[in-house]
Amino acid sequence: MKKSHPEALPLDDTLSPLSLKRVGIDTYRENVAYLHRECDLYRAEGFQALSKVEIRANGRRILASLNVVDDTSIVDCQQLGLSEDAYASLGTEEGHPVSVSQAEPPASIPALHRKLAGERLSRDDFRGIIRDIAELRYSKIELTAFVVACDRGELDREEVFYLSDAMVRVGRRLDWHEQPVVDKHCIGGIPGNRTSMLVVPIVAAHGLLCPKTSSRAITSPSGTADTMEVLADVDLPFDALGEIVRTHRGCLAWGGTSQLSPADDVLISVERPLSIDSPGQMVASILSKKVAAGSTHLLLDIPVGPHAKVRSMPEARQLRKLFEFVAGRMGLTLDVVITDGSQPVGRGIGPVLEARDVMQVLSNHSAAPMDLRQKALRLAGRMLEFDPDVRGGDGFGIARDILDSGRALEKMQAIIAAQGAKPFDPDAPPLAAHHFEVVAHEAGVVTGIDNLKLARIARLAGAPKAAGAGVDLLARIGDRVEAGQPLYRVHAAFRNELAFAHQSSERDSGFSIGQAAQITRLNVEF
Amino acid sequence: MKKSHPEALPLDDTLSPLSLKRVGIDTYRENVAYLHRECDLYRAEGFQALSKVEIRANGRRILASLNVVDDTSIVDCQQLGLSEDAYASLGTEEGHPVSVSQAEPPASIPALHRKLAGERLSRDDFRGIIRDIAELRYSKIELTAFVVACDRGELDREEVFYLSDAMVRVGRRLDWHEQPVVDKHCIGGIPGNRTSMLVVPIVAAHGLLCPKTSSRAITSPSGTADTMEVLADVDLPFDALGEIVRTHRGCLAWGGTSQLSPADDVLISVERPLSIDSPGQMVASILSKKVAAGSTHLLLDIPVGPHAKVRSMPEARQLRKLFEFVAGRMGLTLDVVITDGSQPVGRGIGPVLEARDVMQVLSNHSAAPMDLRQKALRLAGRMLEFDPDVRGGDGFGIARDILDSGRALEKMQAIIAAQGAKPFDPDAPPLAAHHFEVVAHEAGVVTGIDNLKLARIARLAGAPKAAGAGVDLLARIGDRVEAGQPLYRVHAAFRNELAFAHQSSERDSGFSIGQAAQITRLNVEF
Repeated sequence: MKKSHPEALPLDDTLSPLSLKRVGIDTYRENVAYLHRECDLYRAEGFQALSKVEIRANGRRILASLNVVDDTSIVDCQQLGLSEDAYASLGTEEGHPVSVSQAEPPASIPALHRKLAGERLSRDDFRGIIRDIAELRYSKIELTAFVVACDRGELDREEVFYLSDAMVRVGRRLDWHEQPVVDKHCIGGIPGNRTSMLVVPIVAAHGLLCPKTSSRAITSPSGTADTMEVLADVDLPFDALGEIVRTHRGCLAWGGTSQLSPADDVLISVERPLSIDSPGQMVASILSKKVAAGSTHLLLDIPVGPHAKVRSMPEARQLRKLFEFVAGRMGLTLDVVITDGSQPVGRGIGPVLEARDVMQVLSNHSAAPMDLRQKALRLAGRMLEFDPDVRGGDGFGIARDILDSGRALEKMQAIIAAQGAKPFDPDAPPLAAHHFEVVAHEAGVVTGIDNLKLARIARLAGAPKAAGAGVDLLARIGDRVEAGQPLYRVHAAFRNELAFAHQSSERDSGFSIGQAAQITRLNVEF
Repeated sequence: MKKSHPEALPLDDTLSPLSLKRVGIDTYRENVAYLHRECDLYRAEGFQALSKVEIRANGRRILASLNVVDDTSIVDCQQLGLSEDAYASLGTEEGHPVSVSQAEPPASIPALHRKLAGERLSRDDFRGIIRDIAELRYSKIELTAFVVACDRGELDREEVFYLSDAMVRVGRRLDWHEQPVVDKHCIGGIPGNRTSMLVVPIVAAHGLLCPKTSSRAITSPSGTADTMEVLADVDLPFDALGEIVRTHRGCLAWGGTSQLSPADDVLISVERPLSIDSPGQMVASILSKKVAAGSTHLLLDIPVGPHAKVRSMPEARQLRKLFEFVAGRMGLTLDVVITDGSQPVGRGIGPVLEARDVMQVLSNHSAAPMDLRQKALRLAGRMLEFDPDVRGGDGFGIARDILDSGRALEKMQAIIAAQGAKPFDPDAPPLAAHHFEVVAHEAGVVTGIDNLKLARIARLAGAPKAAGAGVDLLARIGDRVEAGQPLYRVHAAFRNELAFAHQSSERDSGFSIGQAAQITRLNVEF
């Protein structure tokens, strides 16, 4: 039976209005409104606990779910309480009169039902759904239903374009008034791998405009934003960052991404706990953010490996074609590189450890991890070739010159200073207090490193919440090790987190030791 | 990338224990725990707002999602607060020391991911998932993902049996130590249609054991429990109802159904807002409850009509076969009747109005709605034939004798008295104060009545929350009406609800008026 949706009930004008109260409860993204059980309005409209209500004041309105209160010290019968985020987003001071009514159901629910029934949706359907999602009109249940219904190839490539396009339209869109505007992105899944913090200063030093949008870690031990935050402030106001980009040709960890493609953050809040990462949603999420940020050219890194998001070359090529189709429809120039994702890139896994690696590479430090340097130079080289004046094939050499000459370091320092520098010495990084080492139980050659396992251990150790926590790799695939030789060191800020990471590494270190012949190398593009 | 699930962190024993506080906030089914932001435990374990925590006290434990508090008048740094339902289900008094840790992820999540990936699940997979769901270990997001993944024929009939069987196993199961134990069920969607309140007294008067499980309205204007509650108490303790059944051979509106197939109520909390009602889930929901209640024989009513849940005979036959297959695997004797669902059954829609119809039929009142009487007699007749001593074909006559002789009324009064009678006079039912009539705009014949539309108007008018609210039908399909003649009367307890039902009926009355020839009658089994 089709459900009969409740509609907004007109407020009964015989009822006295309620006055707004800020309730000191942090419910994070979930707006909660507190209404006393004895309140006339509650009794008249007969709301139920958890029913969705619309709150209006000063011509502004928010949606919230209702908690019914029996304790007048929280709210009394003349008050409407709001949780902290809800209070902030309504943006009205305490004591102000507020009106409350049952929330209208989102207008796009019929389209959601059609998708649930397996239908192909139109461009307008996707616009309606994404608008409602961006305005936080969907409940967690409705959001999840949409995400699951779009999962597993339920979207054809035309629908993926409609979805991406709709996500751009509901948000703020930047225009840098020049061409090209370049960016890079990795689909993720490889611990360490902080190439952006090397690529951005290199291409910016060359003069290309690179307003890098970066996010914090979602399921990983550190995102570019988390690592950059060790060196500089990343939560800068939207316009301040715009100014930095115009002055220095680049920035790191764009703070305003929530205004770019706002629906993306809402969808991620559901995709993450389900670890749903379908190709269609990945493409829409990445491309919508880049287009909204005003990028005209994008270099996409797809790592392939036994423990990477993409596990085979055919799978990688299929994903690449979907990215190419949608980017084409959105007028974005796309260059895809498929890279070796068989092990972490760089030594450190966790904000401080990764910042150390990055600064060592930028300063041409003798201890700098070469794999990170090489990968960053290759990606930067490909990006430099977005510059019409750079000859095909010359990019890598130019990138290396910029790095070796110290101009990349100089540019990075300028960006750090502009974003608000924090003191950091790569030779004495502020690592978390507690640590332990994981050693090889037998002699042999490292034949494999499980990315997921090491990322997991780093997270259990407290990364990224504890910036100094994480995993420091002491051996890599192909290295010969003796029994008892340390493979990696784990740092943690709290005893219980240390103990927890330790238990996990005891169960499985994530390292395979055997004979060199057992190493399987993927034949990737470079 | 597979998500790295957080695991339960051992409580850091250097931390002082928290003391339990009851917080006067009703969050309904959603357990919420309140922890102060400055609390050592919060800082040490670094919980996030909304993260799922496990709370232990007195050897009992509950799961809750965390709200972070900044106001010591709600909880201070030495307290852990619980919302009212959470406090009740932990069942420990205030001030008692409690321990809090990050909740373990449900063990069945990998099976959920396999279902999301489109795999067929095993019997053990379903048992694991349903156990976690019954223990409230699934988040709304995980629940919705399971429901959506099982929707749209994603379950084969064997899986539907596994699901139904698992749902029975996690709950309490009754054994009446006799045979047959009969029950009836309608898949719903038809307003009014309160046949159970007639069928149960008839078959119980005949001597068959009929422990009727009934629910409250989910999306309808009234469920059997809501209507029965007008006449008697329905929220009786489990064992008291068992005693009533043994004494009187029947009861109405079994109060303990939440202990029977507990996972069902949890799944419904997600299926309802999405109006997902896939055949597999419907079959599992209905059959698991009946088997758990100890029924050995079930009569199932599948109404078919243009505005019913099932809209064509082929669809009805397909659903019937699925019910028959699963019932067979569960050892339940099933008899399916396909009935006319083209319009409401009886006159009243809403608890009081339906109670009036039922009592008029039982007392052979001259104004009793004949359609309700006829349908009830036919269903009761089919049920009586579950009695090995009743000849095939004799059921209807026996049922009619029981009703006409007043023995059905007598039995109903005994059941009402046993459940705790409330005063009720069918000639003066306690209807809601406000009302208006909807009239025919033109002369003609009623050619159609939209079940959904009338159910909707009754709900907007306040049913079932306001027992006296609802719709009273004054005309039926086939009736000739004059312009201005009333088609139905709407009753509401509150002005705003009256206004809202009025707007809705103005947009569309739900009645079609035309020529007799336009009436389309479904050729159903009786």
